[in-house]
Amino acid sequence: MRIRKSVEELEPYVPGEQPKDRTVIKLNTNENPYQPSPLVKKALESFDPEFLRKYPDPVFTDLRVRIAEIHGTVPERVFIGNGSDEVLSLACRAFVENDEAIGSFHPSYSLYRTLAAIRGVSFVPSPLAPDFEWAEPVVKGADGKDVALFLLTNPNAPTSVQYPKEKIVEFASNYRGVLLIDEAYGDFAPYSCTDLAAASGNCNVIVMRTLSKSFSLAGLRFGYCIGPADLVEALYKVKDSYNVDAVAQAVALAALHDLKWMRGNAAKICRTRDMFSEQLRKRGWDVPESASNFVFARPPAKSGADIHSRAREIFERLKGRHIYVRYFKGPETGDRLRVTIGTSSDMDALLCALDEIVGELDS
Amino acid sequence: MRIRKSVEELEPYVPGEQPKDRTVIKLNTNENPYQPSPLVKKALESFDPEFLRKYPDPVFTDLRVRIAEIHGTVPERVFIGNGSDEVLSLACRAFVENDEAIGSFHPSYSLYRTLAAIRGVSFVPSPLAPDFEWAEPVVKGADGKDVALFLLTNPNAPTSVQYPKEKIVEFASNYRGVLLIDEAYGDFAPYSCTDLAAASGNCNVIVMRTLSKSFSLAGLRFGYCIGPADLVEALYKVKDSYNVDAVAQAVALAALHDLKWMRGNAAKICRTRDMFSEQLRKRGWDVPESASNFVFARPPAKSGADIHSRAREIFERLKGRHIYVRYFKGPETGDRLRVTIGTSSDMDALLCALDEIVGELDS
Repeated sequence: MRIRKSVEELEPYVPGEQPKDRTVIKLNTNENPYQPSPLVKKALESFDPEFLRKYPDPVFTDLRVRIAEIHGTVPERVFIGNGSDEVLSLACRAFVENDEAIGSFHPSYSLYRTLAAIRGVSFVPSPLAPDFEWAEPVVKGADGKDVALFLLTNPNAPTSVQYPKEKIVEFASNYRGVLLIDEAYGDFAPYSCTDLAAASGNCNVIVMRTLSKSFSLAGLRFGYCIGPADLVEALYKVKDSYNVDAVAQAVALAALHDLKWMRGNAAKICRTRDMFSEQLRKRGWDVPESASNFVFARPPAKSGADIHSRAREIFERLKGRHIYVRYFKGPETGDRLRVTIGTSSDMDALLCALDEIVGELDS
Repeated sequence: MRIRKSVEELEPYVPGEQPKDRTVIKLNTNENPYQPSPLVKKALESFDPEFLRKYPDPVFTDLRVRIAEIHGTVPERVFIGNGSDEVLSLACRAFVENDEAIGSFHPSYSLYRTLAAIRGVSFVPSPLAPDFEWAEPVVKGADGKDVALFLLTNPNAPTSVQYPKEKIVEFASNYRGVLLIDEAYGDFAPYSCTDLAAASGNCNVIVMRTLSKSFSLAGLRFGYCIGPADLVEALYKVKDSYNVDAVAQAVALAALHDLKWMRGNAAKICRTRDMFSEQLRKRGWDVPESASNFVFARPPAKSGADIHSRAREIFERLKGRHIYVRYFKGPETGDRLRVTIGTSSDMDALLCALDEIVGELDS
């Protein structure tokens, strides 16, 4: 009786495994294979513990100026969270009434459904078109509830595909709710929607970014979003007073002053991604054009074979060889593996292992 | 229409000011005047940025072992949050249905009321007895709603008073909801309730601690609680996957291995507090016996004088002299100042300023 019923029944979000064994080739959680900027190390070493004695800046004065500068907007339009997961959770609390719904494409980031369950509201999935392409988002649930918040990962995960920008622009201009575009992988993609969020006429588009992927700072927990000032203000109202600690603020500021480092790493990852995709395709895999730091690849199989079992079997056998990738069961995703792009040598090791495993399976 | 109605109407929690001017004597947010343990500096300097590349440990393996060891319990009974504010917010989501209420004494930590408003449920205040003493908690609202979660700050803030332990034990054994005892100031107090939370028969008592005060780590955002394993598990279900970053985990672990440092500082603060309270009393102030790192003091006034205006005036004039203390308007609190205990020389400077200001006001 003491635990809320919806929490008792909650199917928690399951993040990718974090094996303790550091010899593992870890391609399962879309982490960056390269070190963060050297400015990060410096920020940690020179951090004066005197600043830990006092509460951190609750409104991120310096960081918001820097982020606004990067995206050509003003600090009033910048919100900062303890990882973009926190921004998502706060958006669910700020923009959705108890009798409204949260929507997203399916398949997409599976956390969205969990967030709706924690928030205690309906979740309305919008099926994608074939090949994981854009389809008209569903903005009313079967139960008649309005989708007040649509969470759009672009490029999408786990599919890796970026939608045509004009589709997003068109949807945003017709949609009456809040459109939150999660650009966690935006630095690996051909285009961004931050210009929509920064536009002066915009009243409902929020674009979210994280330092976890392109800045190699998954361990830091730093996400932000830009959007209309009134929506940003609502997020500040519902956040904890001091949601990002003083060290994280200093480290993030340092990293955000070294865009060159981040872009250099992102470019390397994109090159490796394109080469790896090519290698998989040569071997008969189906690999959608990725705009992110991972690919979502379907192994080849003889006609009539159960490709879901095959994908799962490859996933398990890779794990047996200490190579971790991600497998999402389910009708739309269970025939593929989501593979994070690591270093070239990580990907060579993976290709070698795949050749052997496919050989074993076919023998 | 895009912002939730209850959020539009929300009166946000206002934390104490964080002036940029470092020459200010800052006695307004219960921060510790002494540096954190030297192990904190070491942890920052030796932190390998490689660990920032990857996601942090979502379940705090090493930290929970250490915290369990400190309190004589098991890791399954330990939950860790991004500051104790986050633990509070998660408790409101995990233990309260939409048609139930959250309760606390009044006056107490004013955030509690805001948390209920953000959660969209009723808040039921329980008035304290005279002199801020224990009174029977109200467990049903005027609207008939059950208080499913009672938030008990002990020692209380801003009153500084610790309640008799037997009252808490008795209430806990009769109460059907979850009793969350916020021991933010526990290291400055004569006794703790962590033994109740760790007891094997306990099914509804959670005790929360923070590193912000006694460990001098307000800037870090690290809070934890111990309690029944099923309640702890519910908190893990509703938290963000990675709610405490890798640096904060390393720094907190270092600090938790230097209890001697923390206890030495806490003892110094308690001595300064007792001397400062004595000095105020000599000058005719009413100062309840503090069990925390602050006092809640009422200035002397000639009979018939408006003591609320007087307290507020002293607060303003102190600020004019770059000494920040805290003033909470309202019938139960507006006749007093909440003064954080700083170093001896901070308190001497404050006493000097108070003598001058009271002299000015009476002249």
